[in-house]
Amino acid sequence: MDISHIEHVGIAVPSLDEAIPFYENMLGLKCFAIEEVADQKVRTAFFRVGQTKIELLEPTAEDSAIAKFIANNGGRGGIQHIAFAVADGVANALAEIEEKGGRLIDKAPRKGAEGLNIAFIHPKSSVGTLVELCEDPAKK
Amino acid sequence: MDISHIEHVGIAVPSLDEAIPFYENMLGLKCFAIEEVADQKVRTAFFRVGQTKIELLEPTAEDSAIAKFIANNGGRGGIQHIAFAVADGVANALAEIEEKGGRLIDKAPRKGAEGLNIAFIHPKSSVGTLVELCEDPAKK
Repeated sequence: MDISHIEHVGIAVPSLDEAIPFYENMLGLKCFAIEEVADQKVRTAFFRVGQTKIELLEPTAEDSAIAKFIANNGGRGGIQHIAFAVADGVANALAEIEEKGGRLIDKAPRKGAEGLNIAFIHPKSSVGTLVELCEDPAKK
Repeated sequence: MDISHIEHVGIAVPSLDEAIPFYENMLGLKCFAIEEVADQKVRTAFFRVGQTKIELLEPTAEDSAIAKFIANNGGRGGIQHIAFAVADGVANALAEIEEKGGRLIDKAPRKGAEGLNIAFIHPKSSVGTLVELCEDPAKK
């Protein structure tokens, strides 16, 4: 697996409207996109920081993974996942992890925010941390 | 405040010996340093990923912030903080945040791992997420 950089860091927040001002006014970052990802039941806001993006995630339904993360965290937001950009492709990376005995949430790449191909490794295999792998199909 | 990139992502783990093999064998990253930071009661392991580093944090005492984070997380590891590199200096950034009404954990920069000058923003001001600011004094 050839990881080139951290594509984004996913941060759960109870409300984008409350969170965006911290990143814009306190840290001086600029929100460049807000996007709803219906099948993950979230609304996302993106900020560019060097090679990496911050992806704020607001739940749009009580049964979304982000709503559960916030509930387990005492109602507060927090860093929910880290996403690595894989230069030699997500499908390839998933095959490699399975071959090495790792557990996957996604057995095959699926579409995520920003049109990326994404897949999650199961936290049981990644020492508790939710790890996403992604590739930009436009850069293939 | 002029944030140039994400300096590192801090990931709490119960044991470095269990966590390092995931990052090395499954993800193909290389641990380039292991360092004990006595005043934070942690042992750290670093991996470079593009512009950013992964900092694994293992608690060395039961009263360390990392031990508490793991205990609150059901005994599992997870992403504990995100650290931004501030091009125009941490002291300057802290003054700016206080002026805007933000709360700080550190009122002045202190020494962190790898000889960086660091300071933490209070999660009350950063929507639940623990945010670190850092600068490399060697690059001044």
